[in-house]
This record gives sequence, structure tokens and C-alpha cells, in this order.
Amino acid sequence: MFRPEIKVLDCTVRDGGLINNWQFSDHFVRKVFEALVKSGVDYMEIGYKSSDKYFSRDENGKWKFCDDDDVKKATEGVDTQMKLSAMADIGRIDNEDIPKKSDSVLSMLRVACYAKQVDKAIDLAHHCMDKGYETTINLMAVSKVTEREVDEALEDLAKSEVPTVYLVDSFGAMYSEQIQSFAKKYIAALPGKQIGIHTHNNQQLAFANTIEAIIAGVNRLDATIYGMGRGAGNCPLELLLAFLKNPKFDIRPIIEIIQEDFIPMKAEVEWGYHIPYMITGILNEHPRSGMKAMSEPELPNLRRFYEDLYSSEPLD
Amino acid sequence: MFRPEIKVLDCTVRDGGLINNWQFSDHFVRKVFEALVKSGVDYMEIGYKSSDKYFSRDENGKWKFCDDDDVKKATEGVDTQMKLSAMADIGRIDNEDIPKKSDSVLSMLRVACYAKQVDKAIDLAHHCMDKGYETTINLMAVSKVTEREVDEALEDLAKSEVPTVYLVDSFGAMYSEQIQSFAKKYIAALPGKQIGIHTHNNQQLAFANTIEAIIAGVNRLDATIYGMGRGAGNCPLELLLAFLKNPKFDIRPIIEIIQEDFIPMKAEVEWGYHIPYMITGILNEHPRSGMKAMSEPELPNLRRFYEDLYSSEPLD
Repeated sequence: MFRPEIKVLDCTVRDGGLINNWQFSDHFVRKVFEALVKSGVDYMEIGYKSSDKYFSRDENGKWKFCDDDDVKKATEGVDTQMKLSAMADIGRIDNEDIPKKSDSVLSMLRVACYAKQVDKAIDLAHHCMDKGYETTINLMAVSKVTEREVDEALEDLAKSEVPTVYLVDSFGAMYSEQIQSFAKKYIAALPGKQIGIHTHNNQQLAFANTIEAIIAGVNRLDATIYGMGRGAGNCPLELLLAFLKNPKFDIRPIIEIIQEDFIPMKAEVEWGYHIPYMITGILNEHPRSGMKAMSEPELPNLRRFYEDLYSSEPLD
Repeated sequence: MFRPEIKVLDCTVRDGGLINNWQFSDHFVRKVFEALVKSGVDYMEIGYKSSDKYFSRDENGKWKFCDDDDVKKATEGVDTQMKLSAMADIGRIDNEDIPKKSDSVLSMLRVACYAKQVDKAIDLAHHCMDKGYETTINLMAVSKVTEREVDEALEDLAKSEVPTVYLVDSFGAMYSEQIQSFAKKYIAALPGKQIGIHTHNNQQLAFANTIEAIIAGVNRLDATIYGMGRGAGNCPLELLLAFLKNPKFDIRPIIEIIQEDFIPMKAEVEWGYHIPYMITGILNEHPRSGMKAMSEPELPNLRRFYEDLYSSEPLD
């Protein structure tokens, strides 16, 4: 038994690119695209849509920008229903740099924002909709703001035209009961809209929390191949497809590309469960200090890392 | 807020020993013991209680046998409330080889069995109780037998004197809804007894499923340091202690020993999330074929490994 409303979005190249500044070869991105097409995934998020007014092309690979020619080259010649998506961050792209949908191979733009930026995000999303795109808003780091701030953001989103809103556990800090409580809140506050879920794996709960969200009624699911993503990574696509009973999904192309590309890559680029990320997760902190610890030639004293981060929390 | 009835058992040396035939140094086991004492864990399972009639002492380290002198040496001189446990498998130890509790430093013997062996397990557990031990029965691999077989085993257990029964997800195959359903079944079928949970991490659900069991009313929790255990390993103790709000637990000694001993060890001994274990987990199979695949000098073709295991399932 499966729920036909459920749509899976793979964001391996977008979230995984946060580890290596989107320095993926054309061959690799093409191979990911083809594996996802074969696996029956609904959307592939191929990178960020950002402007080179704000980011250097020397420091960042092409999937930080998702120029249409690059996306076309990586995906052309394949007959597929799978849609392409890119993420846009508030303040990292100007309206005039977004082409019309009719001039683009992208079908969807997802706008990521913090709760306090929700009005700007709605403006940008409405602009994307006017240009013809499917649009979502991904409300980040809601584990770190007050319930009242989340409620106010949801009120604004409810009044907007944006059809899909994502619950995002940016810090990998949430347990199942929080996912349930947030998911129910989003569903109640946003009648007529679809709710999505994007998780991080700091506490090995990314997949489990995605299941919790499904049980609560969430229909738009993010995952990445072999869990590749910033810090501890994301919900592994291979686990999610095996869980979903929809016969349109096929796990075999994903197993194949994991063996051919992701297992070798993991020996060079680091993501997954590591104690520094676990510590930022249990303390509900941004993973940046964990990523700094992991990037040192030698791990710092982890007990002290925990104690310092713990005692740096504001006592309120 | 915490539930004072909850007791945590660390089985790092026992389940982790399944990877390296219990070839741990005395220094290492002593260090694990001391870290667990400091962390406030309730029980340490230090190995298997088995007879050298059935296992070679050349092939297996001392924690496969847990002779009292060895256990004493590893633990003496420390003032602690933490209790020591060993696991006994049906048919791998004879009654006469179990010393009286008054002659042993072990407080608890846990009897592991399959559903079809439950009568033998109850006999052995009763014998252990007669000798003065706390006792549990750990019903393995219940994801692989019929509901009726589980129910019958629970009926026998309900009539027994054994005070604690564990729900065991031996193959790492269960999702949260199955854990909930089994946990509720055990609680309903075994009034007056404590229920425990022991999970495996094939689908990155060992910690999440332990939380699910807690929510369902399970009070006896197994975990291992850094998740060390057979195949994909177990529920990581560091995550579980951070989740439980009981102030008697301290995560810091666990972080310390992970850095000093477990991270270096993981470079040499393999456990954790790997695709062969993921595949046996999603197909609800014993991990042995996954462990064989992982032990080869080079991984076999994983897509074919999946297809072969998938099509070897009986069509009923």
C-alpha cells in the first residue's frame, strides 16, 4: 500500500555540494541524473540558483549557479517525467537574474529562508511563480526559534500563494515527537498546501524523522544518495525508496551508483555520522563548529568541544 | 522530565565481540567498564557466558566465556552501583557450568533464544534464577516468524517466572510502526513483567526504534558505545544518553572513550551503516550474507547481491 500523493525529491548535488563547493564533474552530475531517472524519483534538485554578483565562480562549481546551459547539458537527451529543481537563498539572487520558466529547463525553484525572512521569501517565491515556476518555501532552523516566531511565519505563509512549505530540521536536532508536533502544526496552519520534510542526520534520525513526517501526513520528501549532504548528511534515498511501497520506485540504480561513485567518493569527501556533528545536533546548534572540528588535520579534544559548546548556550 | 524506571544496559563488549571474536585487550575492557561506571549506565554486559565444551578458546577471546576470574580482574577495585551481565545462548552452556550467584561477580544472565526455543530458554532462565541471578529472556529475530509463533512464545513467557523479556530486532528490519505494534503486544501479553528493546542499525533506525519503544512503554534499553556491534551495529549509547533526560547519566566519559579508543578501532574493525547490511535489513534477512560480502577483499556487485537475495526469498 502506498500513498500516491507522496513525491520524492533528491537533493544530492545541491546539499552534497555544500561539502565540496559544488565541484562535481559533469560526468558525475550526469550519472546522478540518469540514476535518479531510472529510480523513478519525482524531482532532482541540481544545485542552487544564485547570482555571481554574490559568489565567486572561482571558488564555487557551476551547481552553485545552475546556469541554464549547464543544466541543459547535464540532462539533455533523456526522455523523463522527472522534474528539475534548484534552491534559491534570500539575498543571494536578484529577481532579474531568474529567467522565465519558458526559457529554462528547471521546473521548480525552492526558496530557503529563516523564519524572520519569511516576507522576503514569499516575495521571491511569488516572483518565481509569476515567471512560471513551481515554487516552495523551505523554512530553515525552526528548532532554534520560538514557537511564536514559527506561528507568525506560518500565518504569513498561509496568506501567500506558495503551494508547498517544508519543515526543515537544519541542525539534525529534532526527535520524533518534535517532528510530529511541527508537522501537525504546519498541516493545521496551512490548509490546502502541501507540506514537505528535509532532515539532517546528526543523531542518525534523518530517515526515521522522514518516516515520522510521512505518518503525520507530509507528502513531499527530501533525500540524498547515500545520505550525502552537509555535515552528517541527510535522509538516505536508498532507505527511503525501500520504505515507500510505490512500485514506480526502483532502488537498484541507486545501489549501483552508490557502489560506483559514492563509496569511492566517501573516502575523499567526508559526510555522515561523526561525534562533532552528533554534538551540535544534541545541543541544537548550527553544524559549523562541527564542520570546523572535522576539517582540522586532527580532531580537537571532543569532550572539551562538547563542554565548550554546552556552556556557550545562553542561559535564559 | 525522565522516567525513573528506565534502565540502560551497555552491551559493547558482548555484541561488539561478534565482530572480532571477543579479542579485546584487558586494558580496553577495563577502560570500557570505567567509562560506563562514570556515565551512570545501569548494566554492563561484558560478554557471553558459554562453555568451552562448545567453543574453542584459541578462536575466541575470554569474553566469549566470561570466567569469573577474568570478569573480576577487569572490574575489581571500583566502587559502583553498575551491575554486570553476561548473555547465554541456548545449547551453548550447560546448567552445571553456571556458578552460583554468590560465587560470581555477575548479577544478571540474559538468555537469548528464537521463538521455537522458548521452552528451553525458560528452563535455563529458571535455573539461573534458582542460582540467584537476575534473568531476562531475549526473543531474537521475531521479524522473521509468524505472529502466531510470537504469540505462543509470549504465552509461555507469561506463565514463567522470568521477570524481563526483550523485543529484539536482530536483522535491523523493523520500522517504527512494527516496533510500536510489537512493544504493545509484549506489554499486553506479559503483565507484571518489564519489557526491553535491542535493535540493530541496518536501516539507521536503531536509535529511532529505541525511542519508539520508550514511547510505547519499554523500560529496559540496550545500547553500545559508538554503536559497535555485529554488522551495522546497535543503538549508539552516546545518542541514547543524550536523549534520556535522567541527570544520573553523563555523556562525557563516553565521548572521551570514543575519541581515544573507538574512532581508532573503527579504522581496523568494521561496523556501521554499509550497503550490504542495508540490503539484508530491508529484505529482513540474517546479516550473515552481508557480513560475508563486507569481509571480501573487494565488495561484490551490490546490485546483483540485492537481486539475488531478493529473489531467494520464498514466494508464499
